[in-house]
Amino acid sequence: MEKTIEWIKTSDTTGYSRMIDQTIIPYEYKKVDIKTVSDMYDAIKTMIVRGAPAIGIAGAHGVVLSAIENAEESDFIEKVKKQAQYINSSRPTAVNLNWAIQKQLDLIEENKEKENKEIIKLLTENAIKMEDEDIEINKKIGEYGATIIPKGATIQTHCNAGALATVAWGTALGVVRSAYEKDKTIKVFADETRPRGQGARLTTYELTRDGIDTTLITDGMGAHFMKKGMIDVVITGADRIALNGDSANKIGTYMLAIAAKYHNIPFYIAAPKSTIDSSIKTGDEIVIELRNKEEVTIVNDKPICTDKVNVINPSFDVTPAELITGIITEYGIFKPDEIYKLFEDK
Amino acid sequence: MEKTIEWIKTSDTTGYSRMIDQTIIPYEYKKVDIKTVSDMYDAIKTMIVRGAPAIGIAGAHGVVLSAIENAEESDFIEKVKKQAQYINSSRPTAVNLNWAIQKQLDLIEENKEKENKEIIKLLTENAIKMEDEDIEINKKIGEYGATIIPKGATIQTHCNAGALATVAWGTALGVVRSAYEKDKTIKVFADETRPRGQGARLTTYELTRDGIDTTLITDGMGAHFMKKGMIDVVITGADRIALNGDSANKIGTYMLAIAAKYHNIPFYIAAPKSTIDSSIKTGDEIVIELRNKEEVTIVNDKPICTDKVNVINPSFDVTPAELITGIITEYGIFKPDEIYKLFEDK
Repeated sequence: MEKTIEWIKTSDTTGYSRMIDQTIIPYEYKKVDIKTVSDMYDAIKTMIVRGAPAIGIAGAHGVVLSAIENAEESDFIEKVKKQAQYINSSRPTAVNLNWAIQKQLDLIEENKEKENKEIIKLLTENAIKMEDEDIEINKKIGEYGATIIPKGATIQTHCNAGALATVAWGTALGVVRSAYEKDKTIKVFADETRPRGQGARLTTYELTRDGIDTTLITDGMGAHFMKKGMIDVVITGADRIALNGDSANKIGTYMLAIAAKYHNIPFYIAAPKSTIDSSIKTGDEIVIELRNKEEVTIVNDKPICTDKVNVINPSFDVTPAELITGIITEYGIFKPDEIYKLFEDK
Repeated sequence: MEKTIEWIKTSDTTGYSRMIDQTIIPYEYKKVDIKTVSDMYDAIKTMIVRGAPAIGIAGAHGVVLSAIENAEESDFIEKVKKQAQYINSSRPTAVNLNWAIQKQLDLIEENKEKENKEIIKLLTENAIKMEDEDIEINKKIGEYGATIIPKGATIQTHCNAGALATVAWGTALGVVRSAYEKDKTIKVFADETRPRGQGARLTTYELTRDGIDTTLITDGMGAHFMKKGMIDVVITGADRIALNGDSANKIGTYMLAIAAKYHNIPFYIAAPKSTIDSSIKTGDEIVIELRNKEEVTIVNDKPICTDKVNVINPSFDVTPAELITGIITEYGIFKPDEIYKLFEDK
């Protein structure tokens, strides 16, 4: 299975991160190699790599790059920790970034008595292991999720929680793929997902490439099709889930969840356990990233409006637990108010 | 007050329609002269002129153009009626088009014994009268509407129900303008309104030109700002209102109305009586125009997605009466279930 992001190992202690450039799809399909911490920060920030699980892996790779850059430094660990913090600051909302970086830092801590070269080797192995685990996790999410997809269903989704948002297979679109393996008659309605158009650019690209019947709609259309009985279930990914089940995801998700509730259409979140932030009780504590004005005002290199207008561009919104039918994880499907149980015995 | 669309009278029995070309705003501000029935059909269809009240006037002008074209024909009235039907078929949802054309046809019927030249003169006078009445009506809608705008309010709107959608002043934006005359601290949040971007292109253009503080947001953002307490009231226009108050308006309005209800934010429709279709009992009877795929897939002359995707592009949706706080008309503000009263005594 082709990986959206993967570590290219040139030796036990050298290598770099290779990723699909998601800013140019569907016009071009091209991979870029990220070889420095600074380039990794930019790749996450400018969304060459995006999607909560994928930027988690990018963070893990970033720590390896930092370790390689600082291999000869006497204060190796301090330098890597500081750069890890820098990488972590590239995007504030998706908790997977923090989670993956922390896993790498924990590994360093556990092995701090070892030589730098040995630590780099362990970080490299761990990063590659995380890539493979991400695929396994998505496959499990897909299997659990497929059980709630009715035969011949039309699934609406927002943004891109697909192969491109993960290492492969996808979370919300992983559910679509697993359902499609059993039932070729399922269909997808993909929200455009302004301002950055991940639904239009990425979701329609990866689903039609797999032969899945995909219809592109604009973000204001969902409720209309729901009322017409054309949508059976809504599934999106998430960027951070609070212990009470409140879920941050791409801006527009909340509006869609309200519309689904109004029409009694089930609304599911599909996300790995690593998207759950066990340090926060409710969605009120989630920091919402504000991005630049031009994402809204410029489309295809040309303005869509007068330059005299103000813009506020929150990249995410929070869907409260009460609007979520279930959260599909690699450990099964949970009601949002039961998601905290994942942290009880583990 | 500058008119968005106006009859240019070159004599009592000759003239043409002059209108702002709304397809090129905000890049260019240019007027076009429409001198034939065929060009008027195209101008409405391609949305050089758009907005329910404005296309009503365009329809009235179209009938005058038809009368001028057929002035020498023996079956003058039949020919004009047939062309009127043709113009009326240009766009199916906004009832104002049918209403205005019918007013012109009624005038012909009342004066059918007169000479063609005399009828053309009467049609011309009537068209100009309708233009001026549209402005008066909007001013009244504005005055009534301003009474429900709290001091310093932020008003969210969808699409463009402004001066550009009418002869001047606007319906929903007429309310904004009337409120702004009394209170310079009001603000507007304008939905982009994909696929055609009337909010981004037209609403921000005309409001910022008037000095009104306007923030452009994408169609998926509304609910997020509502939750944050940043929206005080939502006002949109309408293209057709059924006797029970169900209201068709630009696609995305329904989703916004659901979100407003969920947050207990008042949701108003601002529209003249001519937008109410007294021949239909509920919104289920409203025909929703389907437009072409390219409106969704092409932005600024470039695709936003793979060409393998399906598209459904309904231009309008229907907001049920239960989601509407009130309908602001030139006769006052009505609860949706009382709007039928406008047809009882008149």
